[in-house]
Amino acid sequence: MRPDEERLAWEGRLFDVVVERWGEHERELVDHPGSVAIVAVDAENRVVLVRQTREAARTELLELPAGTLEPGEETLACAQRELAEETGLHGGEWRQLASLWTSPGFVRERMTIFRCEGAREGEPATEDDEAIELVRIPLADLPGRLGELEDAKTAVGLLLLLRERGL
Amino acid sequence: MRPDEERLAWEGRLFDVVVERWGEHERELVDHPGSVAIVAVDAENRVVLVRQTREAARTELLELPAGTLEPGEETLACAQRELAEETGLHGGEWRQLASLWTSPGFVRERMTIFRCEGAREGEPATEDDEAIELVRIPLADLPGRLGELEDAKTAVGLLLLLRERGL
Repeated sequence: MRPDEERLAWEGRLFDVVVERWGEHERELVDHPGSVAIVAVDAENRVVLVRQTREAARTELLELPAGTLEPGEETLACAQRELAEETGLHGGEWRQLASLWTSPGFVRERMTIFRCEGAREGEPATEDDEAIELVRIPLADLPGRLGELEDAKTAVGLLLLLRERGL
Repeated sequence: MRPDEERLAWEGRLFDVVVERWGEHERELVDHPGSVAIVAVDAENRVVLVRQTREAARTELLELPAGTLEPGEETLACAQRELAEETGLHGGEWRQLASLWTSPGFVRERMTIFRCEGAREGEPATEDDEAIELVRIPLADLPGRLGELEDAKTAVGLLLLLRERGL
């Protein structure tokens, strides 16, 4: 499926706005390169999350490590890079859990969620403007903490992990 | 938390783009009024989904019934209105399942997901530009069909429902 016409309405650093004509209808859409998120389980059977200020939400959120695809980057390579940068975790066994549109009514952002197990610990290498706190939650505690989650990708990833583990 | 400065960068019908300065950092954000989605279970224990063309995804997607908050509208009233419009279902028992940011790295969209059970059937009243097909899936079949889902809110809602039902 392709639109009949499309034009760039606003150009940003992370995303653009495009206006597309599909037959009789005009659609305003946010165009984004796509993203990844990682459900990482450490050697002590804890899931490794990040807590950071999210200006969009105007609060701190507890989330899966995540990031945006660089031009031409494969989703798995991106996920491995982002996990290492944000948490220091590297290596391990990787598997895709899901690939989802985050808000398909108006946002062209496809997010791929991976699971990583058996990674080695290392030093995070976060960028200057990312103040990230690592939060490790034992898998057995997760069912009781689902109500704390306020981020959709984190809910999906952790619900899929719990389902896999029969928790 | 509030930004030090904010300005409107692009104004659309469904969403705007704002640029905010938070201390040293400038953030480009999509500003949206917020949305709802509904996990509706019919009298025959089937979950009621909608299949529609999503221009953002350039394909058809299978999703929870969902919609955007009108100015001043409460999330529950919005969810009941949207479910009736898209599926004809009305009445029943309602409960909030989750309230989540859809993509908090760059989108200010909070989505509230409700569960509705025991609703009565009626006639949908979809808008002209919405060609919506209703898809009813028996709860017992859902676990085997999770892999078909490509929409994040739908994954969250159905995973929460399955968890509640012990499926």
